[in-house]
Amino acid sequence: MACLLLAFFSVLFAGPSMAQDAGAFSAYVSDSGEIRLPRGIREQWHHLGTWAVLDAEAPAPGFHDVYTQPETAQAYRKTGAFPDGAVLVKEIRAFHSAPMTTGRSSWSGDVKHWFVLVKDAKGRFPEHPNWGNGWGWGLFYPSDPAKNASTDWRKDCLGCHVPAQATDWIYVQGYPQLHEEEAK
Amino acid sequence: MACLLLAFFSVLFAGPSMAQDAGAFSAYVSDSGEIRLPRGIREQWHHLGTWAVLDAEAPAPGFHDVYTQPETAQAYRKTGAFPDGAVLVKEIRAFHSAPMTTGRSSWSGDVKHWFVLVKDAKGRFPEHPNWGNGWGWGLFYPSDPAKNASTDWRKDCLGCHVPAQATDWIYVQGYPQLHEEEAK
Repeated sequence: MACLLLAFFSVLFAGPSMAQDAGAFSAYVSDSGEIRLPRGIREQWHHLGTWAVLDAEAPAPGFHDVYTQPETAQAYRKTGAFPDGAVLVKEIRAFHSAPMTTGRSSWSGDVKHWFVLVKDAKGRFPEHPNWGNGWGWGLFYPSDPAKNASTDWRKDCLGCHVPAQATDWIYVQGYPQLHEEEAK
Repeated sequence: MACLLLAFFSVLFAGPSMAQDAGAFSAYVSDSGEIRLPRGIREQWHHLGTWAVLDAEAPAPGFHDVYTQPETAQAYRKTGAFPDGAVLVKEIRAFHSAPMTTGRSSWSGDVKHWFVLVKDAKGRFPEHPNWGNGWGWGLFYPSDPAKNASTDWRKDCLGCHVPAQATDWIYVQGYPQLHEEEAK
């Protein structure tokens, strides 16, 4: 009975990290290295931070909301590094702006796409075109969220991350709770 | 044994909604109507949306990250209204800006303060100076997060919310997942 209850609560509360059909390495990576888009992240994951790019003519305008698994943020606060299996999802949304009581404000609209990064500290997929520099790289559109639209991480993803090479390719300055003592 | 396990897992996974010393109405409201600041919201609650006010001279500059309990967002999607006991926390952070690969980007810094709203559909605290219009109103600073710094909701809170009166005083247009079919 105790074990049954344990199993029941583990499944009930584990949320998206218990996705079906998971590879042995990660719930979001198949055995052959295909990355899946995690769902329910705004509801169930740790909101690390938001980037606002409020210029419609910019390379990537909109709100960039970034999430990770709660256990990944906890591990980073202890070690200063992303643990093997860490997943980061950046949800890119359109933006709206108007004068409001707080001043000129901007807020988010519909999802445009998602970027997904999966930390791989062991170089598991050396031949796969979406794995390299210690990460798996994914790009998903709402029109087909089951398909990684990136065909080559060097072409589709790396360029934007080069300035963040010294912090394991991640712009950690935008995620204040990684640097605070606890998740206040 | 089963009951012990049940109790253990309920406490372990319920997170901030099981705060100690809770009033009968809400874990964040004492029996006399004093509001408490929920903690761990970025890690455990539903990120509804972020407002960016990127003008240092504006009335309330910074990033305004808004969170609610996962069950509140689920209820709103079903009914189009905030349920009794719903809690909204708006965390106000400083902002930084710089040119980046995405275009000119802004991101959040340290917490400046938090606003807390608690839905009260029953008018429980008619004499209390921080309850009115169907909500309890709170304002907390990092220097003393245990103390509601609002002394009168009409003076400290209401003014900014008047334009949102038609949507129960909440700027729901900034929270896209309240209007989407599910928490994608």
